[in-house]
Amino acid sequence: MKKDTIAAISTGMTNSGIGIVRISGDEAFHMIDRIYHGKERLSEAESHTIHYGYIKDKEETIDEVLVMLMRSPRTFTGEDTVEINCHGGTYVVKRVLETVIKNGARPAEPGEFTKRAFLNGKLDLSQAEAVIDVITSQSEYALQSSISQLKGSVRKKIEDIRKQIIYHTAFIETALDDPEHIDIDGYGETLKKVTEELLVEIKKLIDSSDSGRIMKEGIQTVIVGKPNAGKSSLLNVLAGKERAIVTDIEGTTRDALEEQIQLKGLTLNMIDTAGIRKTDDIIEKIGVDKAKEYVKNANLIIYVVDASRPLDSNDNDIMSLLDGRKVIILLNKSDLTTVITKEKMQEEINQKVLKFSRSAEAGTIPMIDISAKEEQGLNELEETLKEMFLHGEVSFNDEVYITNIRQKAALIDACGSLEKVIESIDNQMPEDFFSIDLMDAYESLGSITGETIGEDLVNEIFSKFCMGK
Amino acid sequence: MKKDTIAAISTGMTNSGIGIVRISGDEAFHMIDRIYHGKERLSEAESHTIHYGYIKDKEETIDEVLVMLMRSPRTFTGEDTVEINCHGGTYVVKRVLETVIKNGARPAEPGEFTKRAFLNGKLDLSQAEAVIDVITSQSEYALQSSISQLKGSVRKKIEDIRKQIIYHTAFIETALDDPEHIDIDGYGETLKKVTEELLVEIKKLIDSSDSGRIMKEGIQTVIVGKPNAGKSSLLNVLAGKERAIVTDIEGTTRDALEEQIQLKGLTLNMIDTAGIRKTDDIIEKIGVDKAKEYVKNANLIIYVVDASRPLDSNDNDIMSLLDGRKVIILLNKSDLTTVITKEKMQEEINQKVLKFSRSAEAGTIPMIDISAKEEQGLNELEETLKEMFLHGEVSFNDEVYITNIRQKAALIDACGSLEKVIESIDNQMPEDFFSIDLMDAYESLGSITGETIGEDLVNEIFSKFCMGK
Repeated sequence: MKKDTIAAISTGMTNSGIGIVRISGDEAFHMIDRIYHGKERLSEAESHTIHYGYIKDKEETIDEVLVMLMRSPRTFTGEDTVEINCHGGTYVVKRVLETVIKNGARPAEPGEFTKRAFLNGKLDLSQAEAVIDVITSQSEYALQSSISQLKGSVRKKIEDIRKQIIYHTAFIETALDDPEHIDIDGYGETLKKVTEELLVEIKKLIDSSDSGRIMKEGIQTVIVGKPNAGKSSLLNVLAGKERAIVTDIEGTTRDALEEQIQLKGLTLNMIDTAGIRKTDDIIEKIGVDKAKEYVKNANLIIYVVDASRPLDSNDNDIMSLLDGRKVIILLNKSDLTTVITKEKMQEEINQKVLKFSRSAEAGTIPMIDISAKEEQGLNELEETLKEMFLHGEVSFNDEVYITNIRQKAALIDACGSLEKVIESIDNQMPEDFFSIDLMDAYESLGSITGETIGEDLVNEIFSKFCMGK
Repeated sequence: MKKDTIAAISTGMTNSGIGIVRISGDEAFHMIDRIYHGKERLSEAESHTIHYGYIKDKEETIDEVLVMLMRSPRTFTGEDTVEINCHGGTYVVKRVLETVIKNGARPAEPGEFTKRAFLNGKLDLSQAEAVIDVITSQSEYALQSSISQLKGSVRKKIEDIRKQIIYHTAFIETALDDPEHIDIDGYGETLKKVTEELLVEIKKLIDSSDSGRIMKEGIQTVIVGKPNAGKSSLLNVLAGKERAIVTDIEGTTRDALEEQIQLKGLTLNMIDTAGIRKTDDIIEKIGVDKAKEYVKNANLIIYVVDASRPLDSNDNDIMSLLDGRKVIILLNKSDLTTVITKEKMQEEINQKVLKFSRSAEAGTIPMIDISAKEEQGLNELEETLKEMFLHGEVSFNDEVYITNIRQKAALIDACGSLEKVIESIDNQMPEDFFSIDLMDAYESLGSITGETIGEDLVNEIFSKFCMGK
């Protein structure tokens, strides 16, 4: 089937040095021939070459351009592709696109280039999904995990697992068809061992999605503490700029301030809150209530303690909020004479645990001496974060991280089917029961690479892409 | 002198399909060799070719890319140039640039690529200035005039004029050096004729700058009229969207609303104002005062008359504001039964002129019957605008338009010097007086093409460019 030729602006729509209009499809070279004026006829030029000239709309010169010409199949989409590098003004880029459209191209839908790459077999679905993740990456880990997926780490892993499943399914089917020549007695034990191994691999992938999500989306972090403990100073130090207004006056921060902070490749979506205390100031009270609300939804709570002052009833209130949550305690103001040590703090926590004993983790809350003012202790904070959320070192060479919710759901489905296989084996069910559930797992995993997936879902996935990709 | 190698992000900094990091300078190919991993060694590849591969920062893969390789001198800057087309996410593009910088490139200053193109003789200064004008163009005429300048229309014109000046200066100098063989008697008359012709050409260029500025920056337009005359409806119709709130209630619009409107290639920076009337409402009164203020600074006043109602004292107030200004009168509500005709309106104007007789143009104000509601009469409005501001048809093939204030100032200087030449001739001054002023004109014109311009001014001009161009 001859597909229509599509075109879109692929660069950001702000005035800038260079803009790109991308064209893909069977008619791409004929279209560029009609509007490009330069030394050569581009449809006759070699693949992967660059040509200087002008784009004209009939008699009118639209822009001076470089045209990139790439022939099928050695292109992103697998189709004949032309990229017009024009000046990056929003008006002129639009005019170039308009000229291409006038000459027969159809405006591309969001993600349509990548969708074609997928449909033409240049990428599997997990790689296609990685394309948009590369673009939206905001931290080093997010970029590294999506590049690794783009290079096919998820695809290879899934293909390996599927290969084993199909091998065993085929064996069962063949044996059932030809019982005289193939002996299937005792095969259940072999299959059980294999299935258990596959389950371990799949569960490891599912577990990786916690780290994966943290890498991709960042850690939802809330800073709490009583007034004037140094919460806003901490935010400013981490953000590397004066984000929050800092004074010696208790209750300076009322609105919750949000800031995205990059630490050792991790993103912290950090919310600085009003100091928590009993107050009659109405605005401040709203701030305190909001802080408590944020704490409920956070992945991480950073509790800033003013180590230069004794704990008081406000600290008690705060500690009750931490029960059962992922918490780091920062003993701030280590530059001053301190009255609160790690040991003292641990005692307090142990006491509370007796009172509010619901938290298993309470005893092991990490504690760090810091001075936000002198920027001391921040390295230890970063290392602790990596330990807590990524279990130490991250390697993208050996590890596969699942960052995509759709892929995780498919893995969970596959898990369920394989567990049924083991159940059937344990219950000594007939062998064709095994193969039904094996095929279900095979299908679920196939939806990750896109081999077993409907058109609607494909369309839905690519509609989330940006224009021009 | 060996120049350092520079690099910058040349595409817009919003997440998008493609981003470009551009590198220019002697070391560009060595740098890309260090960070590009693909089939070939790029420093050995042919010019104007495209290469698929990965950018790595030591062991870490940063992105999957296409690299464009262009060898000096057949490049924009005239230097060896590499453009890395990576994924267009803001983080990943920055990481690619960072990797290039780590490998020895210096971050480019705004406009530094174009500055190098100028310094390396690839563009004259008028063409370099056209580059940024192409990028910031917001309408068809703005784009057309800057593309024509980019192709060298201003440069050619200025070079022609300078060639004639230098010819005559050289002749005078030679004649004065060698009076025995070259007769200069009566040369004044010849020179006067030539200088007058040059003056005509230069003045034509200066005059073109009115149209040029209108093309580049648009027409500062204010819509005035009494309450409920249909000003906001007109704005909405022209803007093609519901910009202003429209009701039947007089005084609906209080704030002045601004909208940029494209009409037949022209930009109108249009301000809709509060209806002008005597009012006790304090907020509305401020609006009315503001409207009067805007009228003072406008290039064009569109006076909307409600033709279905008789004129009243508010209209009288408005008409007094129009005195001596560029005005179009729209007789609105032609869809209803009208009581104000063009003839009636002309009578009113003629009467006013008697009263406020300061305006020469008052008698020739263009008038158009329209219906904002039914979208009638808008074509005639567009044609009238073109006639008023661009004197009808615009052709970029034959006409040179000056859109740059710096260039206009240089032309005015050159004009002054040539007028002095004529004065000297008329006063029968010695011939060396002629050549001094001729050389001044030559210098002034040279600053347009950049031949006679200091480093400071060059730096100032390019500092206004965007990053990566």
